[in-house]
Amino acid sequence: MGTALLTDQYELTMLQAALAAGTARRRAVFEVFARRLPGGRRYGVVSGTGRVLDALESFRFAPDDLEFLSGIVDEPTLAFLADYRFSGNVYGYREGEAYFPGSPIMVVEGTFAEAVILETVVLSILNHDCAIASAASRMSHAAGGRPLIEMGSRRTHELAAVAAARSAYLCGFSSTSNLMAGRTYGLPTAGTAAHAFILLHDSEEDAFRAQLQSLGQDTTLLVDTYDVAKAVRTAVELAGPDLGAVRIDSGDLAAAALDVRKTLDAFGASKTRIIVTGDLDEFAIAALAAAPVDGYGVGTALVTGSGHPTANLVYKLVAREDASGRLQPVAKRSVGKPSKGGRKWAYRSVTKATATAEIVTCAPAEGEGRALLAELVRDGQVVGREPLDAARERHQATLAELPPSAHSLSDGDPAIPTVFS
Amino acid sequence: MGTALLTDQYELTMLQAALAAGTARRRAVFEVFARRLPGGRRYGVVSGTGRVLDALESFRFAPDDLEFLSGIVDEPTLAFLADYRFSGNVYGYREGEAYFPGSPIMVVEGTFAEAVILETVVLSILNHDCAIASAASRMSHAAGGRPLIEMGSRRTHELAAVAAARSAYLCGFSSTSNLMAGRTYGLPTAGTAAHAFILLHDSEEDAFRAQLQSLGQDTTLLVDTYDVAKAVRTAVELAGPDLGAVRIDSGDLAAAALDVRKTLDAFGASKTRIIVTGDLDEFAIAALAAAPVDGYGVGTALVTGSGHPTANLVYKLVAREDASGRLQPVAKRSVGKPSKGGRKWAYRSVTKATATAEIVTCAPAEGEGRALLAELVRDGQVVGREPLDAARERHQATLAELPPSAHSLSDGDPAIPTVFS
Repeated sequence: MGTALLTDQYELTMLQAALAAGTARRRAVFEVFARRLPGGRRYGVVSGTGRVLDALESFRFAPDDLEFLSGIVDEPTLAFLADYRFSGNVYGYREGEAYFPGSPIMVVEGTFAEAVILETVVLSILNHDCAIASAASRMSHAAGGRPLIEMGSRRTHELAAVAAARSAYLCGFSSTSNLMAGRTYGLPTAGTAAHAFILLHDSEEDAFRAQLQSLGQDTTLLVDTYDVAKAVRTAVELAGPDLGAVRIDSGDLAAAALDVRKTLDAFGASKTRIIVTGDLDEFAIAALAAAPVDGYGVGTALVTGSGHPTANLVYKLVAREDASGRLQPVAKRSVGKPSKGGRKWAYRSVTKATATAEIVTCAPAEGEGRALLAELVRDGQVVGREPLDAARERHQATLAELPPSAHSLSDGDPAIPTVFS
Repeated sequence: MGTALLTDQYELTMLQAALAAGTARRRAVFEVFARRLPGGRRYGVVSGTGRVLDALESFRFAPDDLEFLSGIVDEPTLAFLADYRFSGNVYGYREGEAYFPGSPIMVVEGTFAEAVILETVVLSILNHDCAIASAASRMSHAAGGRPLIEMGSRRTHELAAVAAARSAYLCGFSSTSNLMAGRTYGLPTAGTAAHAFILLHDSEEDAFRAQLQSLGQDTTLLVDTYDVAKAVRTAVELAGPDLGAVRIDSGDLAAAALDVRKTLDAFGASKTRIIVTGDLDEFAIAALAAAPVDGYGVGTALVTGSGHPTANLVYKLVAREDASGRLQPVAKRSVGKPSKGGRKWAYRSVTKATATAEIVTCAPAEGEGRALLAELVRDGQVVGREPLDAARERHQATLAELPPSAHSLSDGDPAIPTVFS
């Protein structure tokens, strides 16, 4: 599907006015950044860059798009759009990398005309995916190595769900319930069973037997439809001690897990895992650290960014060619929303394997630390694709480098300061 | 695009087990409802039904879907999916209608097999769209007849944005900035200009002149890039008193609007409208009721459901055929999440043009009030499509019928009680 209409109308009317004024082809630099992290978060996580590259390649105005737009913009603008191909450069933070207030997550260089109309779709993708990734990362850390299954599809827009599963995997989740995400991004998929399956059958025992016969002993039986203790006994009696797992979806999960563990052990099913689900977020996951839980299924909180469903990133013009042909920094002075002019470079300053600052400069400054901007698009050609597993590994390395305060779940300041120099 | 893989894996593994056990073709009834309204809301708004009907018609397993699934489910299940066509019935609340805890927003009747696998995509659509609509409705009421422009695309997933614009329009927004939503759903589109356009030019005056020359006097000039008072004077000097509108995006919007109104009036531009934007939600909109504002642009809060980005609707098996062929009510007894068994009917009890109760019954009960369930799908054929404008009108009529407490923005109980009888 073409992505060109995933755009706010004003991008195209601005284009029209700039084409008429002769300013549309001025060279320009736009930057994506967050003025602040949402609600006391200690770091954000970059995600969606790969999807932005896909969207850029599909950003073409088809004949039926142009026909629709003929009621909105004039002929010269339609002619420009008909031939539109982004021919500029894009630099960006790699997926999985941490970011902080003012980090130039993405830098788009081109003419004003070709760069301004990408604003909406670039921000849509990054605002969604970074929000999900930033929540997923906290959950992964809270889970302390226990596996997390992403199962939030039903609580968010049907295609946002696919992107959310991707961001969750990037940040350490082990699998997703979403089949489209499994196919599209090659993610491991997983699933248990629903209460509907138990209720379909004439008894819980019938349901368990049906599931075990079809899916094998390694399946996960849902044990909280009626009486948890009774269900666990039934499950082990039917499956034997090699039952894969049981799932608890309600009640006091810590207490229930303890009871279930005792019952399983008493029946010799000491290897049967306990999976818990039910409105888990990073706080609930952390609170279950001492409970005998072997895995978490996370839904609503993951796909809604755990209280912060958007990363509130902005896409701002920071430099443009002037009448004399020189690139000049620009910045608005709106009350409460100032921005810093000039094209940026960014470095993570690291001392003794611990990050100490996010250095943002207005000129290349090798030696300030690890360079954070990678080349993604050169002269309109995507050159910065990478496998999702590379981003997943980067995320773990990035997290390991952050100071301990980064992992506090309480509200606070960003884990490292952003230093503009 | 096919929608069949927008599905949690467990729907298909449950199907496999039920097919093997001989229970998959038992008749079944699933219901979509909310256990509670989010965070003290007084009512919810049904939205997304039309999109569910579209998704249902596209719910087909293509050869490449089946090839992917061959690693997940067995041959008999793949054979079932290859021939899958929903052949049952769907009833539902009409879009724009209000709902309350326990309202059976959608009722799906079919075999267990054909109905269970629709769960994920049905919930994804309704949970997203109802969340947006429920927020949009509060904003529309707070705006008190002043036009609202939906401009939140950049703050949410790129395709969630399109659905959000649809829900906003359904609930009274006058237009959207999203071009894809304009084309897909025939919504009015609108737009102003961004700070980037001002900054592109060598002066604010140059930018205003370029915009006016290309887009005409009726355009909306953005006046807060540098100094609002100066920008407004420049705008009127260039455009004359017939300037369409100015937009303010920062600062104390109420105070700024008052100042701008005075300046505009002093220059004879008494018909020039003032549009305000910038992190508006229903509370901020209500707080601007006394300010000289002619329209609101709403972004982030709209597309994120103003604090409640999901409606938390569930899809529950409430009745199924037993071994003897009789339809039996079923319900789980999980702690804190009990559900009520049996297929439901619903009526809005109205006295003297004011709604007094949501009546939910386990048998048809004409005379209890306005019947809320409409026929949407009969024997697999969609029969319940309607134009979006019909839903938009219904929403206004539904709101007019609710008691005044429904329009309180403070947290509280649902505007009317749900009575199960």
